[in-house]
Amino acid sequence: MGHRVAIAGASGYAGGEVLRLLTGHPELEIAAATAHGHAGAPVNQVHPHLRTLAGVDFTATTVEALSDADLVIMTLPHGQSAELAAQLPAGTKIVDLGADHRLVDAEAWSAYYSGPHAGAWTYGLPELPGQRAKIADATKVAATGCYAVATTLALAPVLAAGIGSPEDVVVVAASGTSGAGRQAKPHLLASEVSGSLTPYKVGAHQHVPEIKQASGATSLSFTPVLAPMPRGILATVTIRPSTAGLTGDDVRDVLSAAYQDEPFVSVLPEGVWPQTGATLGSNSCHLQVAMDADADRIIVTAAVDNLGKGAAGQVVQCANLMLGLPETAGLSANGVAP
Amino acid sequence: MGHRVAIAGASGYAGGEVLRLLTGHPELEIAAATAHGHAGAPVNQVHPHLRTLAGVDFTATTVEALSDADLVIMTLPHGQSAELAAQLPAGTKIVDLGADHRLVDAEAWSAYYSGPHAGAWTYGLPELPGQRAKIADATKVAATGCYAVATTLALAPVLAAGIGSPEDVVVVAASGTSGAGRQAKPHLLASEVSGSLTPYKVGAHQHVPEIKQASGATSLSFTPVLAPMPRGILATVTIRPSTAGLTGDDVRDVLSAAYQDEPFVSVLPEGVWPQTGATLGSNSCHLQVAMDADADRIIVTAAVDNLGKGAAGQVVQCANLMLGLPETAGLSANGVAP
Amino acid sequence: MGHRVAIAGASGYAGGEVLRLLTGHPELEIAAATAHGHAGAPVNQVHPHLRTLAGVDFTATTVEALSDADLVIMTLPHGQSAELAAQLPAGTKIVDLGADHRLVDAEAWSAYYSGPHAGAWTYGLPELPGQRAKIADATKVAATGCYAVATTLALAPVLAAGIGSPEDVVVVAASGTSGAGRQAKPHLLASEVSGSLTPYKVGAHQHVPEIKQASGATSLSFTPVLAPMPRGILATVTIRPSTAGLTGDDVRDVLSAAYQDEPFVSVLPEGVWPQTGATLGSNSCHLQVAMDADADRIIVTAAVDNLGKGAAGQVVQCANLMLGLPETAGLSANGVAP
Amino acid sequence: MGHRVAIAGASGYAGGEVLRLLTGHPELEIAAATAHGHAGAPVNQVHPHLRTLAGVDFTATTVEALSDADLVIMTLPHGQSAELAAQLPAGTKIVDLGADHRLVDAEAWSAYYSGPHAGAWTYGLPELPGQRAKIADATKVAATGCYAVATTLALAPVLAAGIGSPEDVVVVAASGTSGAGRQAKPHLLASEVSGSLTPYKVGAHQHVPEIKQASGATSLSFTPVLAPMPRGILATVTIRPSTAGLTGDDVRDVLSAAYQDEPFVSVLPEGVWPQTGATLGSNSCHLQVAMDADADRIIVTAAVDNLGKGAAGQVVQCANLMLGLPETAGLSANGVAP
Repeated sequence: MGHRVAIAGASGYAGGEVLRLLTGHPELEIAAATAHGHAGAPVNQVHPHLRTLAGVDFTATTVEALSDADLVIMTLPHGQSAELAAQLPAGTKIVDLGADHRLVDAEAWSAYYSGPHAGAWTYGLPELPGQRAKIADATKVAATGCYAVATTLALAPVLAAGIGSPEDVVVVAASGTSGAGRQAKPHLLASEVSGSLTPYKVGAHQHVPEIKQASGATSLSFTPVLAPMPRGILATVTIRPSTAGLTGDDVRDVLSAAYQDEPFVSVLPEGVWPQTGATLGSNSCHLQVAMDADADRIIVTAAVDNLGKGAAGQVVQCANLMLGLPETAGLSANGVAP
Repeated sequence: MGHRVAIAGASGYAGGEVLRLLTGHPELEIAAATAHGHAGAPVNQVHPHLRTLAGVDFTATTVEALSDADLVIMTLPHGQSAELAAQLPAGTKIVDLGADHRLVDAEAWSAYYSGPHAGAWTYGLPELPGQRAKIADATKVAATGCYAVATTLALAPVLAAGIGSPEDVVVVAASGTSGAGRQAKPHLLASEVSGSLTPYKVGAHQHVPEIKQASGATSLSFTPVLAPMPRGILATVTIRPSTAGLTGDDVRDVLSAAYQDEPFVSVLPEGVWPQTGATLGSNSCHLQVAMDADADRIIVTAAVDNLGKGAAGQVVQCANLMLGLPETAGLSANGVAP
Repeated sequence: MGHRVAIAGASGYAGGEVLRLLTGHPELEIAAATAHGHAGAPVNQVHPHLRTLAGVDFTATTVEALSDADLVIMTLPHGQSAELAAQLPAGTKIVDLGADHRLVDAEAWSAYYSGPHAGAWTYGLPELPGQRAKIADATKVAATGCYAVATTLALAPVLAAGIGSPEDVVVVAASGTSGAGRQAKPHLLASEVSGSLTPYKVGAHQHVPEIKQASGATSLSFTPVLAPMPRGILATVTIRPSTAGLTGDDVRDVLSAAYQDEPFVSVLPEGVWPQTGATLGSNSCHLQVAMDADADRIIVTAAVDNLGKGAAGQVVQCANLMLGLPETAGLSANGVAP
Repeated sequence: MGHRVAIAGASGYAGGEVLRLLTGHPELEIAAATAHGHAGAPVNQVHPHLRTLAGVDFTATTVEALSDADLVIMTLPHGQSAELAAQLPAGTKIVDLGADHRLVDAEAWSAYYSGPHAGAWTYGLPELPGQRAKIADATKVAATGCYAVATTLALAPVLAAGIGSPEDVVVVAASGTSGAGRQAKPHLLASEVSGSLTPYKVGAHQHVPEIKQASGATSLSFTPVLAPMPRGILATVTIRPSTAGLTGDDVRDVLSAAYQDEPFVSVLPEGVWPQTGATLGSNSCHLQVAMDADADRIIVTAAVDNLGKGAAGQVVQCANLMLGLPETAGLSANGVAP
């Protein structure tokens, strides 16, 4: 029989996507779907798209509800997962999509988040060198933030190869609205977002320390932009080359080498640029590169589905590793387009 | 081993969705993906979202390319499938998504289409009474048009139950742009469509005779509307009741009884209205009903993904039946939302 | 100098559009912009698009704030305008965009709204026969609801000409999200609305009695649909003909005759269908007609900007008439497209 | 009476917006609207939103059609305006929205465009120091490209004030689809663009030399992105500070001083970020600034309507100056939102 997985905080968008992936997963089954505000309500009242869960209700987010599972996925608001995790038996396998356990540096944590630093767990990005094995061995994994996934996959191999300067990285990344959650806030209304692009948290985004830690960048300017679409992140990552005469092919070779065996990262053929729409519903990251010789900058662009590889897909990928299942089980590299 | 399926016309949106479903299908594999204009080109050049088909090329749409398959799916422009089908060996199993073989009545064909009437094949809507068995026994199936799927699933049980008048049906149905295909036409540009709704072919849509034939309606007003979204059809079907004192619950009971065992048709709980977004990527149809006592009309609304249950999903469902596979294999009732 | 106009409830979308129109109006100036929740806040905090109002603050919605104006425009939540109007001096010229004073029939009011029936004011649709003069003479005008504008302009001339049956009218009308206001409700989030169409209040919409009263229909089925765009209403109005042999040209002639001198209603050339996008920002209504001989129904489609002719534009048009100004002053028949 | 203005290339999106502005302009009237492919066709066939031009037809783009005007506005494909301008009488006042006459440097021209370099005209960005007077005195003005407007207004004062390094500028700018024109190209279809962001011409955009020339930057990395909305540009401009200890307030002060008397450039209050939606239909540019001390970069974000201040609005602004009219005549600083 399949492994039993419980989701804490299953009423949000990321939680809903985890549920969707689990309903199609050949080896995992849903042990519990908990939700604070919707405990007792039918899952379909909140997630009308999940027809196969008709008849299933959310339960309260309690230690009891989660203890019965082989693995717990937490898609809770930042700050809540550390508290909940601390109450579960020590050996419980957990993948936490919140930020609580991502940062190694307590100071960086304090600069961007409130509350005590809960300490870092194994970082859940299997495509980083050596990370796959660590995740497979871990009982506690801190999944990567959605912006950090796109940015790190674009940036890390360039820095690791020594062809780009970790001290001069400029990132502009635009996200669809589901990245902001499903709380009813005025600026997230369709009337406000439709047909409009707007930056936010400019110069002070909480993802910066995470991206630095994961990518090896030491100085990174990050500007997030809210885009008029429900899903998708497009990250434009520009890096000062650290070697002269670097060409776009050189950079593409570095990325291709880094990801040649990865099922979920595609370096696109030359001339083809990532489209976020092509990643919708998938666990894929699409990459492309250009060398701007005139401005002396490497430009790597990355597209992911913020709820896919940026959240739920990555979480299921980590869960697969932690449970000894094929890493790609229940996940698709193919997007739903157009 | 799996059954081998060839797709003729795989470069369009419906063809792309068939390819996507086949890449995730446990029992089917792609024997050939043919395309007239893109023969020789990489599939990923046209469908960048289908990463697992990297390295696969389109082939020309020839009898040879299709003869090697256990089943042929045709997603060709209307008028081309009849000609191609006539050239294939008589016993070849074919599901045709074009209109060529849908209409029994040659006169109705002539009124809306050019060219000779190719004759009718088994109609590919398994949820119609008795149709499932016919499809399973057929070698040639004419899949249902996207508007016809949504309208017929809403309408047919009401007429079959004798509670609505087949002589007085008014339908307004809005579709996302992928229903209009991927030919570059000015009125389909994003600049034109974004933020705009527009009706078209008002009073003379070619789907009317198909819907009449499939639903039992004898008079039906049908107004299609182009909506600013890539996928989805919302059909609002209003019917004059043929019995006095009919309530919304009566109508809901009729629909619930008709679809209680159907994996892909959901009569939603009272008070929940279909959203096209909840069907995206799925093979589901969502239904809800109201009785407008004041205006004396039954109102049934239906949502489908025009490329899912409205096209590729339905085609794969029929193929499953024709090949003796589980009807739901490779298909999901769950949408990708938000 | 110009006339001074006060807007009560200026922080909502309709209020914002009234402010926008007034900033470009050659004869009107803003006496006060009041807002309940935002009193004291800069107008630009709520309406960042209105740059010329930088430095202007909302005031509280008080009798004092409004008494100083030559005319008061009320864009308040339904139920609040009657109470406020009753406190203003009897001779105060008021245009109320709320529903409070639209319905003549107290019973119809009670069926759809709570609270006492405040009595009917002069109905603010100048294009109805004889209505223009009544508005010009009135001190109190109840502006038309947005759905009612589109539906009534399509329907009233057909019924008045005796070519359509008032007993058999079926309307499906889709609206952009601004029609639902700017309160942060979960179903209005961009993530929910993007790429999705959904019906609501099916079989029981509060606009039905208003449309009946304004158009002369005696039985009318009305299904509203929420569409993924910020502005625009497309109404598909189908009517059973009451005379045999009616053609589309006959119906077009009736509409053309009714609106030939109207600056803001356009019967489009044959073959051109209304697009809501073409009305954005304008005070125009675009109409087109078809005769579905097969189904024996007249189909009239109408497009308006729900905040333009459907709300703020219409209000300014009425204000112009009430103040003896050119009816078109400060208004444009031209939309902002694409 | 008003000045007579002819528009060459009036069937495109920018041409349509020029027509719209002229229909509302108190001092200008349309002498001719020419269009190559649509000569003889009704303007409303191409621009159904311009109801007040019902009855007006496009004429062929000939010297005769244009000679009769007080000023000619050219919204032609790049490369065509130089040829046409050379045929008009030497004294004809012309504003050219094409790129033909923007670049002073013939070498930069050759690097990005084909055909001979036509020489530079007076650059049409009145907000640059000293430029307003030059435009007023000019008979020939080369209007600014849409991306260049947003980027230059954000960047030029920072470089002029000596607080940012002209050698280290990184720009990522996203545009709505109307910026790509109305030619029916597959990648501009609504089905492709909806819900998707994609970069293009990365590392080699033709606007780079123009932005350098206008802003004073000497090295500039520019990545354009196609966004799922019809109008709007959001430019994120990051600059290495050239002085230590620079704060966001310092940068805001520089921008505020540069634009304090400008009717169409708004430095937003601290904490308010530009939204492209708020500029729709207006001639405004909205600016905001942050200092990313950690990454040591100034970040200035700018929003414009690419068809407004980015094209037609700017052109009318220049025409007003060249004809001795009030600079703001017929233009609005207020957007149409939501």
